[in-house]
Amino acid sequence: MSLWREVCEQPAVIDRLLGTQLAAAREIAGTVRAAGVQWVMIAARGSSDNAALYAQYVWGGRNGLAVAMATPSLFTLYASPPRLAGALVVGISQSGQSPDIRGVIAEARRQGAPTLVITNEPGSPLAAEADMVLATGAGPELAIAATKTYTSQLAAIAMLSAALREDEDAFAALRRLPEAMQSSLDGAPAVAELARRHRAMARCVVLGRGFHYATACEWALKLEELTYVMAEPWSAADFRHGPMAMAGRELTVLAVAPGGAVHGDVMALLSSLVAERGVELVALSDEEDALALAGTPLRMPPGVPEWLSPIAGIVPAQVFCYELAKAMGRDTEAPRGLSKVTRTW
Amino acid sequence: MSLWREVCEQPAVIDRLLGTQLAAAREIAGTVRAAGVQWVMIAARGSSDNAALYAQYVWGGRNGLAVAMATPSLFTLYASPPRLAGALVVGISQSGQSPDIRGVIAEARRQGAPTLVITNEPGSPLAAEADMVLATGAGPELAIAATKTYTSQLAAIAMLSAALREDEDAFAALRRLPEAMQSSLDGAPAVAELARRHRAMARCVVLGRGFHYATACEWALKLEELTYVMAEPWSAADFRHGPMAMAGRELTVLAVAPGGAVHGDVMALLSSLVAERGVELVALSDEEDALALAGTPLRMPPGVPEWLSPIAGIVPAQVFCYELAKAMGRDTEAPRGLSKVTRTW
Repeated sequence: MSLWREVCEQPAVIDRLLGTQLAAAREIAGTVRAAGVQWVMIAARGSSDNAALYAQYVWGGRNGLAVAMATPSLFTLYASPPRLAGALVVGISQSGQSPDIRGVIAEARRQGAPTLVITNEPGSPLAAEADMVLATGAGPELAIAATKTYTSQLAAIAMLSAALREDEDAFAALRRLPEAMQSSLDGAPAVAELARRHRAMARCVVLGRGFHYATACEWALKLEELTYVMAEPWSAADFRHGPMAMAGRELTVLAVAPGGAVHGDVMALLSSLVAERGVELVALSDEEDALALAGTPLRMPPGVPEWLSPIAGIVPAQVFCYELAKAMGRDTEAPRGLSKVTRTW
Repeated sequence: MSLWREVCEQPAVIDRLLGTQLAAAREIAGTVRAAGVQWVMIAARGSSDNAALYAQYVWGGRNGLAVAMATPSLFTLYASPPRLAGALVVGISQSGQSPDIRGVIAEARRQGAPTLVITNEPGSPLAAEADMVLATGAGPELAIAATKTYTSQLAAIAMLSAALREDEDAFAALRRLPEAMQSSLDGAPAVAELARRHRAMARCVVLGRGFHYATACEWALKLEELTYVMAEPWSAADFRHGPMAMAGRELTVLAVAPGGAVHGDVMALLSSLVAERGVELVALSDEEDALALAGTPLRMPPGVPEWLSPIAGIVPAQVFCYELAKAMGRDTEAPRGLSKVTRTW
């Protein structure tokens, strides 16, 4: 099964990325600094768009660079793109094939903005369009659902952040990631057993906040792709502004609740959802209070700094989705109606 | 019932906004132009966040201003906000009470960025924090679900766009909106009948693209608040990159598919979802092809330019949600667990 093999390859993929792309990341960081970049625009779809959400927090919170998500239709179908003065324009794509992402990078070049593409296919049309390319080098990904290309995009984003800060402590923390990911994989049998209990699930919400909002979105996307369960991601803050009305005994809440600056806020919400609304809780965390609150506790590798923990923390969620899909009798390699390369305009 | 009364007040509210706030919008536009703004950051939650999505397309596509959504936790819980050089920073809030939105505006002022607040409460703490205030003047909104404050935020965003362009044709089109909204309200009985047929619905996706991505998100949010049906909004492009695996006979697809630049793209997706996946389609449109494809056709007022049609086009969706909530026996005034003012950090 390609999907399972690709999930298990992730520690080696991240290790290789750190070993081979460090010089490239430092060179790109130098160019970005020299260009006097004031803000960033990212164009991406699917799992790559969830990687872009991670970049929004990492580059925003650790490099002071505000990140805007591109609205590709303004560049393509509407043909009225915004001005990109002061921006670094970034495309993130596993395949480098989608015409709309390419359209954003092409317009950025036309306007003279520096462009960067993060892709697993450095020979792709998208990469050819950009000034700078950071290759994720994850090797061929055969399963339709992205796993190792997602975590390698996150690691590439984190490497670039460390290079922009010239922060050797950050690089050292990055180098400890493959070990943390491996420890998550070692815990896969326990996750598998917990996942199978949810095979009657038809819908859920997936909550996260801050650096792990990306984890919530990617967990939800994997669930929809692999199990066809409707899984709606929400930031813990936005959930309170309306969608919380849905929460009752019939709702399963999946939550990413690791330690860090937003832990108290997320825990306050989860505690009230369990105590007052009676929801069924699946918690992905490295903190005992969150794990104790959940009927289904999924352990994240401990000791990973919050800004890097989305890279290791998604692994138990991937295992959960893969095992649930198997328990539901789904085709984990080729979900219905999806292709590995999706072209949108 | 406050909710129904507030839905019906919308033509008068927009008419009054255009009559009283034009000078304010022109003055703000002058200040923004003089400040040499290069990009925009918006902080908002709930329905106001959907208004921000509309601004992303209107200001991006018609004023050349790229819009980044703020990540408020970076300003508050993480205390590591990005740099805001070159930005206009905008807060959108019905009540003007939420501490996280206020935190973004306060930091923007600290950094010297021009700040604008669009709110229904010009005496609120949020408004007090900003350099410029555009009051929506919708009058007290008593129902918990936002309706007239949402459309008045959209109209304020559109007015500011017209003022930035000094575009008298745009103002003339704006002035025709209340009539289009009234024609939607006149069609409410037909929508009510169609909505009641869906009272067994437990989940749906809501598709839209471009200017109407905001409409899809707001329709989904109203459904979740009022009916507790899980309603997940997707752009028609992003839906193809994964979530489409969910689509089968058991899925109801609500789609916003008006005429305009993205109509062909949205119709291609909807046609394949109906023909190949057998989904149940509810289409909100002013185009006959979309209405003919749908088991449940909801008519949008015709003759409204695409960039303004989200303001009139949300009205049939509001009616749909209100009637469905009544048919399901929900409390339309006070959905469970929600308050009119939500404070998040």
